[in-house]
Amino acid sequence: AGPATSSVQLYGRLDASINSVRFSGVGATPSSQRSFLSSDTSRWGVRGTEDLGGGLQAFFKLESGFNVDTGMPSNAAQYFNRETLVGLRHKDYGSLTLGSQFTPNIAMSLRIDPFQRSGMGAMLTLFQRGGAAGILGYAPMHNNAVMYVSPSLNGFVGKAMYAMGEGAAVGHAGSYALEYSRDRLFLGMVHDRLRSTGAAAGQPALASVNNRVTSLGASYDFRAFKLYGYWVKADVDGSFGMRGGFVGVKVPAGRGEVNAVYQVRNVDDPANSDARLFAVQYMHPLSKRTSLYTSVGHQSNKGNAAFGLWPSRTEANGNPARGADVRGFQVGMRHVF
Amino acid sequence: AGPATSSVQLYGRLDASINSVRFSGVGATPSSQRSFLSSDTSRWGVRGTEDLGGGLQAFFKLESGFNVDTGMPSNAAQYFNRETLVGLRHKDYGSLTLGSQFTPNIAMSLRIDPFQRSGMGAMLTLFQRGGAAGILGYAPMHNNAVMYVSPSLNGFVGKAMYAMGEGAAVGHAGSYALEYSRDRLFLGMVHDRLRSTGAAAGQPALASVNNRVTSLGASYDFRAFKLYGYWVKADVDGSFGMRGGFVGVKVPAGRGEVNAVYQVRNVDDPANSDARLFAVQYMHPLSKRTSLYTSVGHQSNKGNAAFGLWPSRTEANGNPARGADVRGFQVGMRHVF
Amino acid sequence: AGPATSSVQLYGRLDASINSVRFSGVGATPSSQRSFLSSDTSRWGVRGTEDLGGGLQAFFKLESGFNVDTGMPSNAAQYFNRETLVGLRHKDYGSLTLGSQFTPNIAMSLRIDPFQRSGMGAMLTLFQRGGAAGILGYAPMHNNAVMYVSPSLNGFVGKAMYAMGEGAAVGHAGSYALEYSRDRLFLGMVHDRLRSTGAAAGQPALASVNNRVTSLGASYDFRAFKLYGYWVKADVDGSFGMRGGFVGVKVPAGRGEVNAVYQVRNVDDPANSDARLFAVQYMHPLSKRTSLYTSVGHQSNKGNAAFGLWPSRTEANGNPARGADVRGFQVGMRHVF
Repeated sequence: AGPATSSVQLYGRLDASINSVRFSGVGATPSSQRSFLSSDTSRWGVRGTEDLGGGLQAFFKLESGFNVDTGMPSNAAQYFNRETLVGLRHKDYGSLTLGSQFTPNIAMSLRIDPFQRSGMGAMLTLFQRGGAAGILGYAPMHNNAVMYVSPSLNGFVGKAMYAMGEGAAVGHAGSYALEYSRDRLFLGMVHDRLRSTGAAAGQPALASVNNRVTSLGASYDFRAFKLYGYWVKADVDGSFGMRGGFVGVKVPAGRGEVNAVYQVRNVDDPANSDARLFAVQYMHPLSKRTSLYTSVGHQSNKGNAAFGLWPSRTEANGNPARGADVRGFQVGMRHVF
Repeated sequence: AGPATSSVQLYGRLDASINSVRFSGVGATPSSQRSFLSSDTSRWGVRGTEDLGGGLQAFFKLESGFNVDTGMPSNAAQYFNRETLVGLRHKDYGSLTLGSQFTPNIAMSLRIDPFQRSGMGAMLTLFQRGGAAGILGYAPMHNNAVMYVSPSLNGFVGKAMYAMGEGAAVGHAGSYALEYSRDRLFLGMVHDRLRSTGAAAGQPALASVNNRVTSLGASYDFRAFKLYGYWVKADVDGSFGMRGGFVGVKVPAGRGEVNAVYQVRNVDDPANSDARLFAVQYMHPLSKRTSLYTSVGHQSNKGNAAFGLWPSRTEANGNPARGADVRGFQVGMRHVF
Repeated sequence: AGPATSSVQLYGRLDASINSVRFSGVGATPSSQRSFLSSDTSRWGVRGTEDLGGGLQAFFKLESGFNVDTGMPSNAAQYFNRETLVGLRHKDYGSLTLGSQFTPNIAMSLRIDPFQRSGMGAMLTLFQRGGAAGILGYAPMHNNAVMYVSPSLNGFVGKAMYAMGEGAAVGHAGSYALEYSRDRLFLGMVHDRLRSTGAAAGQPALASVNNRVTSLGASYDFRAFKLYGYWVKADVDGSFGMRGGFVGVKVPAGRGEVNAVYQVRNVDDPANSDARLFAVQYMHPLSKRTSLYTSVGHQSNKGNAAFGLWPSRTEANGNPARGADVRGFQVGMRHVF
């Protein structure tokens, strides 16, 4: 075994933008215009690795989301809300981690979302469990979780996560993924199973229900541009479900790049609460770590859908009335350290 | 362009003192003596800069206040309560920052307060919005703020800050400053405009009022001593206002220095709630980063004024009854890292 | 004086384990089996020292406990809940610290607990104030505390801590210790005095009572194994008290070590709420900083005692019914950075 090496790193990201948003009028609610300084998945953390010899490493991560605009934690109760984990990985046998962990959906989304989970076109709003999406979306994270990630075998990587219920009536969950990478192609599939209450997301109030979400994602780099696709279905026992997806593209433009996405989310509830999102962004790098960007987005809501535009939808007055549309313009700055 | 350089720094300050405080009797309330271990604007943070070439830099700051005596955050909801910001600065064009930011009052106070915003003579108690000063004081900080700071032009620096209301009924605010520095002279002026509710500070309950605060500050270094002066007026539409100020001095004494201040705060309310503070401190450096200090202070309160002595006034039993005076003795330690 | 040197360090520990626990049936409550992913005294912190010359140093510590399994702080209100202190130490005169500090019980326990305050055999559960032990245990920490630690004189070290009441009806506390170290022997004694309410721990509701706790600890390294012993008595004025202690052993085993402990806690309340704990652990180091471990434990509860097994007893469903026993199996990983 070679000499043991190790590192501990303090790291993070600050992303702040000015968002000018127009909510259309619906019923008795008149149209309105609002402006926000918003934070977009800003975070700080500590991570480290220790080389144990023979191809084995120990590693850990503590990461906390915060809002640049207010100094508030993204989640005050769960301060390290963006993974708190410790584990071992071996070059031949894969990795095993314990903690509060992102599901395999997050790793896949970073391969197939042209907006990389940030900005007006981020896939967070329409497809991620929580917020206005309620329980009809992929699960981003589980506490009390054990995860195994296989090594790459001919381009294939398998992942299995199990989150313990710990004696609670509603609780245990699983998330399983298969990914394939080769040259310019990426393909991924994630399947989530979890028990939850059906009270959220305009669902009828169900005591404890089985929730199943299956996602497929792909990207292919044609050099002149990169193409992205996503398809998802979410079902709740004894209630209605969701089908959705998007197509996206990334095009180099001078020093920067243009990203665009068109997203569709259909819910088979009586109100037919469908949503569509179209967003275009120009991202201009000042360095590898610092970028300026500008975006426009159009969110259309039907029935009871009330999706706002990311990231201003996380603000106190950032969401439209049910069935109202949202148009937005954004200019922002991102810095990674 | 030269080679890009960057730095990320973990930094902070711990300041703890033993405070022995005597509250005078007033009406039916007898006099009392209390002792506190108190923390004084202790904080930790992460800050960094990245050189982008051509005189342009990106920079950020995350800073959290905490209490050394209890381990509690100064502000649990707003964990990074001492600025959370990201921005760009150019040597010829000035800086633009986005985030939760100190108003220009804070930068000016560090130039004109002989106690440097700490210790029994700190200008925080009588003149800063919040605490017993209520809305009759300068605003220390705004969330959702954009700030521009000009480069220095013949010694003049201009600052303009705007904080968005984000759709809230009470909200948007502005703070504007002009500073002049030349050799041993500093002059500054800050003007705050903000909308707020008049419910705080013994004000009559007003739904939403315009609040205007204008401050002037100055310092001059006579070598044998340094002289400081401050004047402030705060007005609330449809209610009463405040006029105040201080004179202070810093005198080198052996390896250390002696600081003294006399502060006046007059409120034109029916009860005539005026306050006076006199404080003297000896600060003894053990190194550039570590100091020991001792202070005495006398706070006089009239009418409904109930100001305690900084920093023990932030404690659970740290404030006097209305109209009672406070005498205090302090010995403490400060360490910067 | 030599050149001044200083250091600031970001450090921490993550300890996560899978705990399978069986609660015995008692009365109408049937037996049950639960599994937990649990965090064991995980923490992160910042600490530093500054050499001031002439044998004098300034130092500080900020340390926050968190749960690896959920990302939540161990104590959300008191974020830096594992000491927040600043002080001076001199090689000839000892150290003086101000802040939120561990009592001398903690330093002693790290010398006499074979489980080093972690794992199923940790002395935290039965003997430390708080949790199911209520007020009948040693005090782990005081806020608003001043502590003096003497230098070592012929192997003897004295410690005195005083925590201010700060005007609260229930508050001030003291903790005093004497330790002796020589070659392979350690002896220690700690005496705590504090005022508290008797409402906790199944005590009758007393307004404000004197609480006295005396602890003795010892360890001796016989080379082939290391032997540990502890004895404690806790008394509350006008109510019942506790007597307890343990014997423990550490035995080298290959690259690792085996730890075992047998603990006794007797309470002289009418229900005779006694408890016994037996635990064995095998600790296997992968490096100086990373270890894997496995344990079994058996907690017996009589009367109103309802102690769970550490660390799963800190979880939502981690404690047994009153008088029920607990058997547990644990496998975990610890990483220090």
